[in-house]
Amino acid sequence: MRIGISAKPDVDGLDKLAGRIEAVLGGHEVMYDTDPAKVLGKEPTPIDQMDADFIITIGGDGTILRAFQRSNSKLLGINAGVMGFLTEVQVDDIETAIEKVLKGDYKLDERIKLKILKDGERVSDCLNEVVFHTAHVAKMRHFKITIDGSLADDFRADGVMIATPTGSTSYAMSAGGPIIDPRVEAMVMVPIAPFKLSGRPLVIPAKSCIEMEFAESKECHMVLDGQEIISLSGREKVEMTISENKASFIRFQEDFYARFIEKLG
Amino acid sequence: MRIGISAKPDVDGLDKLAGRIEAVLGGHEVMYDTDPAKVLGKEPTPIDQMDADFIITIGGDGTILRAFQRSNSKLLGINAGVMGFLTEVQVDDIETAIEKVLKGDYKLDERIKLKILKDGERVSDCLNEVVFHTAHVAKMRHFKITIDGSLADDFRADGVMIATPTGSTSYAMSAGGPIIDPRVEAMVMVPIAPFKLSGRPLVIPAKSCIEMEFAESKECHMVLDGQEIISLSGREKVEMTISENKASFIRFQEDFYARFIEKLG
Amino acid sequence: MRIGISAKPDVDGLDKLAGRIEAVLGGHEVMYDTDPAKVLGKEPTPIDQMDADFIITIGGDGTILRAFQRSNSKLLGINAGVMGFLTEVQVDDIETAIEKVLKGDYKLDERIKLKILKDGERVSDCLNEVVFHTAHVAKMRHFKITIDGSLADDFRADGVMIATPTGSTSYAMSAGGPIIDPRVEAMVMVPIAPFKLSGRPLVIPAKSCIEMEFAESKECHMVLDGQEIISLSGREKVEMTISENKASFIRFQEDFYARFIEKLG
Amino acid sequence: MRIGISAKPDVDGLDKLAGRIEAVLGGHEVMYDTDPAKVLGKEPTPIDQMDADFIITIGGDGTILRAFQRSNSKLLGINAGVMGFLTEVQVDDIETAIEKVLKGDYKLDERIKLKILKDGERVSDCLNEVVFHTAHVAKMRHFKITIDGSLADDFRADGVMIATPTGSTSYAMSAGGPIIDPRVEAMVMVPIAPFKLSGRPLVIPAKSCIEMEFAESKECHMVLDGQEIISLSGREKVEMTISENKASFIRFQEDFYARFIEKLG
Repeated sequence: MRIGISAKPDVDGLDKLAGRIEAVLGGHEVMYDTDPAKVLGKEPTPIDQMDADFIITIGGDGTILRAFQRSNSKLLGINAGVMGFLTEVQVDDIETAIEKVLKGDYKLDERIKLKILKDGERVSDCLNEVVFHTAHVAKMRHFKITIDGSLADDFRADGVMIATPTGSTSYAMSAGGPIIDPRVEAMVMVPIAPFKLSGRPLVIPAKSCIEMEFAESKECHMVLDGQEIISLSGREKVEMTISENKASFIRFQEDFYARFIEKLG
Repeated sequence: MRIGISAKPDVDGLDKLAGRIEAVLGGHEVMYDTDPAKVLGKEPTPIDQMDADFIITIGGDGTILRAFQRSNSKLLGINAGVMGFLTEVQVDDIETAIEKVLKGDYKLDERIKLKILKDGERVSDCLNEVVFHTAHVAKMRHFKITIDGSLADDFRADGVMIATPTGSTSYAMSAGGPIIDPRVEAMVMVPIAPFKLSGRPLVIPAKSCIEMEFAESKECHMVLDGQEIISLSGREKVEMTISENKASFIRFQEDFYARFIEKLG
Repeated sequence: MRIGISAKPDVDGLDKLAGRIEAVLGGHEVMYDTDPAKVLGKEPTPIDQMDADFIITIGGDGTILRAFQRSNSKLLGINAGVMGFLTEVQVDDIETAIEKVLKGDYKLDERIKLKILKDGERVSDCLNEVVFHTAHVAKMRHFKITIDGSLADDFRADGVMIATPTGSTSYAMSAGGPIIDPRVEAMVMVPIAPFKLSGRPLVIPAKSCIEMEFAESKECHMVLDGQEIISLSGREKVEMTISENKASFIRFQEDFYARFIEKLG
Repeated sequence: MRIGISAKPDVDGLDKLAGRIEAVLGGHEVMYDTDPAKVLGKEPTPIDQMDADFIITIGGDGTILRAFQRSNSKLLGINAGVMGFLTEVQVDDIETAIEKVLKGDYKLDERIKLKILKDGERVSDCLNEVVFHTAHVAKMRHFKITIDGSLADDFRADGVMIATPTGSTSYAMSAGGPIIDPRVEAMVMVPIAPFKLSGRPLVIPAKSCIEMEFAESKECHMVLDGQEIISLSGREKVEMTISENKASFIRFQEDFYARFIEKLG
C-alpha cells in the first residue's frame, strides 16, 4: 500500500513519531508531505500528488482541515495537538491503530464538504465552514443571503458563516449555532455578533444553493476552514453548494454522540 | 366535494364568515366541527369523522394545530387571530382563496409530524413540538436524551422540547433554537433555560428514534403542540419518531423564506 | 451566645451533625427550627422568633433561601446538599468553622434583597429572584415592566424574573442573564424564552422602583426564591424595590471570583 | 460663547447645515474642527484646542465617539447619519435645538468613560467600549481577566470587550451583553464568540480595576470605541478603570428608556 504522512511541522518529537509509524508500516511505501519532509530530511511528495491508499495526519484539527483541502484520500488523524475534535487516536495508540487500518478493521465516516464559487471561480472546499467577516473589528457589514433564489436573510453583523454538520461542533458552536448530527443532510448559516440580535441560525438543505452578497462595497475577509484567508472588496458574489467530494475519516469508534460528549467534556 | 369547517368558537363575526364560506361553496357539502356547530346552531360533525376533501380553519395557529391533531385532511387556514404563522389567507380573501381551491389552483405543502409513544402508548401527533417541562417553576428537572440508542445529551433545565421544522419558527425559536428550512428532514431538540447553559440545541435526523427519560421521579408536564397537557410522574419513557401522517397545507404562495420574512417581519 | 439551627429535615445523618454542632457549641444556647426539631425530638423555636447571634443552616441553597426569608440573623451555611452555591463550609469542616465564628474570626458578606409589594401588600423578601411565569407551559404571557415610572420593556415570553446580584449566578444565569459582581448596586431583569428573542436582560439601579404588570388577565405564577409560589390572576400590579434588610453571610474566604470559579467549575 | 463644530466630512449638504448653524449662532464665536474646516474652506481649530462652551457634532455615533476621545466639552449631537443611538436631534430641528442650548434650556446627561493603560501608558478614553480581538478571523485567542487582583475569568474566544453602560446598547448588545441602565455604576465584560460558550457576560463595579492579559503571545487588535485600532503582540497588560473625565451630552429629553425604545424600535 501507499501511505502518505502529513504533519504539523513543529510537533514535539516528530522524528520519533515518524520512526514509530514507519516501523509499523514496514514493507509499505511511505510518502511525506512537503512540510514534514523538510523537518525530517525526507524526499517530499506534495499531498495533492500522493495518490495514497490512506493518509496519516499528525497534529490537531488544523492539520486535518489542511489535508482535506488538498486531498480526497481516506485519513487517519493522530492527535498531537491541544485541540483534536476531528482526530481519532492518541499518540500512544499509533501502532495499534495503524495495524487495524492495514487489516481493514475500521469504518469509514464520510462527511460532506462545501464547494465554494467566488464570482464563478472555485476556491478550496471546506470541511468545517466558510466565514465572511468584516476586515475591521467593530465595523459591521451588511450581509444578504439567498437560498435557491429566494432572499432568506438580510442583516448587519460582524460576520456570518456557512458550516457543515462537521463544522457545527467547531467555530459555529461558539457563535451560537446548533449542533447538527452528521447524518442530517444540511448546512447551517450562523451570524456572528448580529446587530440587535436580528440574525438567527438557519438550517438549510445540503442540496440548496446558498448565495452570499454584500449590501455595500466594503472590505471583508472570506476564511476557509480557519486556514486560508481571501480578501473581498464587497462587490463579489459567493455561491455555496455541497461538494462532489467527501471527507473520509478512518474511525474505530463510530458513535457521533459518544465522541461528542467525550471531546466536549 | 365534502368540505369541513373548524373554527375558534369566539372569533368575531363567525356567523358572517361561515355565511360567506357557504356562499362560495354553494352546491358542495359543508360540515361543521363540534365547537363552531354549537355557536352557529348547525349539525355537528366531529373533525375526526369528517372524511372531507379539505378542511377550512377559521382562527389562528392554535385552531390549525388542533385540527391536525385530529385529522389528516388537506387544510386551508384562514387567519382570524392575532398570531397566524401557519395560516394562509386573511379574512378579506376568503372567496378568492376558496374558488382557487375548488379549481385545484393551489400547491400542497406537506410537513412532517412527530409520533409520540408514552410508555409504548400513542398520544396525539405533534406538528410543532412536544415540550417536557418541570411542573414547578424554578425547580429544574434532569433530562436524559437518547438518540437511536446512544445517550446524546444529559442536562438540568426547566424543560426541553423536540420540534419539527414547522415548529422551529414557533416556541422553539423563543427558547433559542435555530430556524429549520422545512425541506430539511430533521427534528430539533431545544433545552429551555438549561443550568449553566450546558444544553445546546441539537438537530437530529427525522428518521431517528429519540427517547426521553428523567433522571428523577419528579412531576413534569408533557405539552403537545401547546394544546394538550399530560402530567408525568418522571418514571415514564417517551419515544419520538417521525409520524406516518403528514400535515398537508393548501398554499398559494410556496416560498418558505418569503413567508417567514413576512410573518416575522 | 444564642445559636439557631435550621436544616433540611431529610439530610442524611442529621442527628450526628446536630450532635457535632452541639459539642462545639458547648455552653452556648442552641435552638432548633420547627422542621429539624421535629426530626430530632427537640423543643422547636421557629426561626423568626429565635433572636439568635447567628444561625447555622444544614442543607443546600434552598435551606439558606428559606432561612433568610424568615430571619435577618447572620448565617453560616453548611453544605449537606447537591447544590451549594450559597453555602460556605463542607460537613467535614463543621468544628473548625464554628470555632472560628465563636472567636469572631470571619467576615460578613452582606447581600441586598428584594422587597416585593403585590397590590401594595408585602410578601417575603427575595435574596435570589422573583419569577413571574405563565401558569400554562407553552402559553406565553405579555409582560410590561416600568422602571421609576418609565415604561422600560414590554414583551411576550414564558416568564420574566427580577434577580439580585446573588441570584445572578442561579436561575437568572440559566435564562441567559449576566453574572453580576455583588458589589454592583443593581438588579437584573431577565426574560424567560421571550418571543422572537425580543426581550433583553436589563441591569437596573438597586435604588429603582420596578413595577410589573400584565397586558392580559391570564393566570400567572409568582415564585419567590424558588421556594414559595403565589398564584396571580393577571390583574395585579407588583412593585419591587431594594429591601431595608440584608442577608448577612458568615464567610472565611471573601473573594467572589474565587468562589464563583470554584462553585461553577 | 465659543461654539465648536465637528462633522463627518462627507455629510450631504454640510455647507448648508453649517450655514444654518452659523445663522442661529449669530454673534457667537464659531470654530471648525480640522476635517469640516477643510471641506468648508474655514480656518481649522483642532477639537482638542477649542476650549468651547459646547460642541456641535454633525454625523452619527462615530462622529460623537471621536469628538469625546479628544474633548471634554458638552456636546450636542445632530443626526446626519444612518445610525444615531447617541445623537440628540434630527437635522430638521437644528435651529430650535441650538436656541434652547443658548438659553440654557437643556439637561446634561453625564456618562462615564473608560480610562485605559496599555503597559502603563494611557491611550484614548472610551465612551462605548474597548475591544480585544484576534487579528486572524477564526483563530481564537485565550484571554485572562483579573478584577481588583482576583482572576475573574479565563476563556478562549474570538475576542472580548469591556463596555460602559453607554456602550451596552451598541456593540456589546450584538455580542450578547445585557442592557445597562446608565445610572448603574458598572462596566460589563462581554466575550465575543467564546469557545464552548464558556465565557459569560459579567457586570463589574465601575470603581474596579480590570486587567486584561493574554495567555499566549499572539497578535491581537485593541479597538477603542470602534474608531482607533492598536496592534498588540499578546505580551501586553492592559488596565482599565473609570476615567476622571465624563462625556457630557446635551439632552432635551432625559428618559433613558423612552430613548432606548425609540432608537431600537
